[in-house]
Amino acid sequence: MADFEIFEASNFVLQKGAVLPKVHLAYKTVGSLNPARDNAVLVPTWYTGTHTDLETYMVGAGRALDPGKYYIVMTNLLGNGISSSPSNTAAPFERGRFPHVTIYDNVRLQHMLLTSRLDVKTLRLVTGWSMGACQTFEWATQFPDMVRTACPIAGSARTANYNKVFLLALERALTLDPAFNEGFYERPPVAGLRAFATIYAGWGTSEPFYRTEMWQAFGSRNMVEHVSDFWEPFFARCDANNLLSQLRTWRDGDISGNATHRGDFAAALRSIRARAIVMPVDNDRYFPPVDSEYEASQIPGAECRVIRSAWGHMAPMNPGDVPAIDAALRELLAG
Amino acid sequence: MADFEIFEASNFVLQKGAVLPKVHLAYKTVGSLNPARDNAVLVPTWYTGTHTDLETYMVGAGRALDPGKYYIVMTNLLGNGISSSPSNTAAPFERGRFPHVTIYDNVRLQHMLLTSRLDVKTLRLVTGWSMGACQTFEWATQFPDMVRTACPIAGSARTANYNKVFLLALERALTLDPAFNEGFYERPPVAGLRAFATIYAGWGTSEPFYRTEMWQAFGSRNMVEHVSDFWEPFFARCDANNLLSQLRTWRDGDISGNATHRGDFAAALRSIRARAIVMPVDNDRYFPPVDSEYEASQIPGAECRVIRSAWGHMAPMNPGDVPAIDAALRELLAG
Repeated sequence: MADFEIFEASNFVLQKGAVLPKVHLAYKTVGSLNPARDNAVLVPTWYTGTHTDLETYMVGAGRALDPGKYYIVMTNLLGNGISSSPSNTAAPFERGRFPHVTIYDNVRLQHMLLTSRLDVKTLRLVTGWSMGACQTFEWATQFPDMVRTACPIAGSARTANYNKVFLLALERALTLDPAFNEGFYERPPVAGLRAFATIYAGWGTSEPFYRTEMWQAFGSRNMVEHVSDFWEPFFARCDANNLLSQLRTWRDGDISGNATHRGDFAAALRSIRARAIVMPVDNDRYFPPVDSEYEASQIPGAECRVIRSAWGHMAPMNPGDVPAIDAALRELLAG
Repeated sequence: MADFEIFEASNFVLQKGAVLPKVHLAYKTVGSLNPARDNAVLVPTWYTGTHTDLETYMVGAGRALDPGKYYIVMTNLLGNGISSSPSNTAAPFERGRFPHVTIYDNVRLQHMLLTSRLDVKTLRLVTGWSMGACQTFEWATQFPDMVRTACPIAGSARTANYNKVFLLALERALTLDPAFNEGFYERPPVAGLRAFATIYAGWGTSEPFYRTEMWQAFGSRNMVEHVSDFWEPFFARCDANNLLSQLRTWRDGDISGNATHRGDFAAALRSIRARAIVMPVDNDRYFPPVDSEYEASQIPGAECRVIRSAWGHMAPMNPGDVPAIDAALRELLAG
């Protein structure tokens, strides 16, 4: 019994021009829409994340995103293995032939779900972590009248070059494994996924995380053991084509990459009308606060509120950093 | 006509126990030893560097390290392709069978060269960049009576875990190339070297380097072009086994990793008697200033002087950062 539902769209035209005959958006809702229809909250997933991860780390009774108070819609990113992905799409777009989808495509499909199926006309809050934050920025840009408040956490409105060189290294390492076979592998490219995980280990947390040996809290005895205990299993479970599909979606994130804004990033940010708290993490290596501060400076009335954590980009996974995040979400929800 | 000389030692016992029947230390001297024999300066090479690189970036008329004033001994790191390396050693220690050599081994061999061939009993200064800095720390620890002053630039006395996770990713990506063939390749593992270079690109400079697109100064038009214009050719010219040999030397650097100090890092630092200026770079990702500050705090009378540069670890390659480095070297040389 699947704990999620599927919204299907036909002949879905992607931002880059390809057409998917059928596209599936997997989603899960918790809580219920109030009579005023003003308590809907959208929470898109992060890189490799699913609606189940959202329920583990962001949504639940006692959290700011409380299903007892809000109608919470959790959407799965295209490419995550549950929504349409290389691993679950039929020929001619299966595996290594899955087309390039963008953050814009994800947000447009989510908008179709909300307006045509769920009858949601306004969003009290859009929030997400990492690629979920990238989707949050895109939502506030594409549908400024629909998004009341926004809280992008450890993500950006346009993927920075420094972030992209990290992604380029990940892509080159994974595809170097001869088992990858241009996406038509018979067995997982285990060595490639292992190299991918090791590169990620150098960016996912932070220098102080390593200097203070925070892996000891998880029982790992040294750095190599930490990489093999946490990072290698984290990515070993993932489908390589799905990782690359989501990676390219991440790489090309840019709220101004559309016909309206034509690359004018500042204008795209200035067009946002949602009340926004942009929340970077001080030790985040690939979504550094300096970019968030610029974004907040351009979004009318926005605040940049920095999370202080040695967990770096992974801070939202750390229970100790949850109170700061929930406090910001509660402020926005209180409106 | 080679522009360097070779010092050969026989049956050289390595720190980890293996014995090299013949080991070659390639070196070049410029300037001459004064009658007081107190103007000798030692400058060991960095990762992939050679004595020629030292003459390009650190030594020369008009520089602090002026051959007109000092007797400058430039030594090539074991594994760099000129001193004994996987690429130039005969069976049974050729290529993938070259033994693991350490910073300690390099320094001990350099000490044999200085005392038994060059008749140098005291060093006015030992300085080097990156792995050259690691050798500088080792020199000041192993031969405290011989080293008057020391200036380790963008390096450490013990390789940090955060630095090691970067090295682990490099090693795994390079060896993932099937052409690598456990070090017995018939042609260079070009794809592996390319992935290696791409990972390096994310650590070698800094976030502000990428954010401000400093590659434009070199004519590259975007990030991917910068990686292919600079980083890929930088490593494509290197022998893969030599890269891995030097990488392992770097990884295991630790001035306290010997019978005397038995892992007591603070005690090893406190045993240094050279007047030291430790020079990290504020944006250095793998030799961060926080580690240099600790090292300087333990070395009697040492100063930690931070170089401010968006070039990060690569600052000494940037003409704009040379004056700060030469000023520190001149202070130490003036005594």
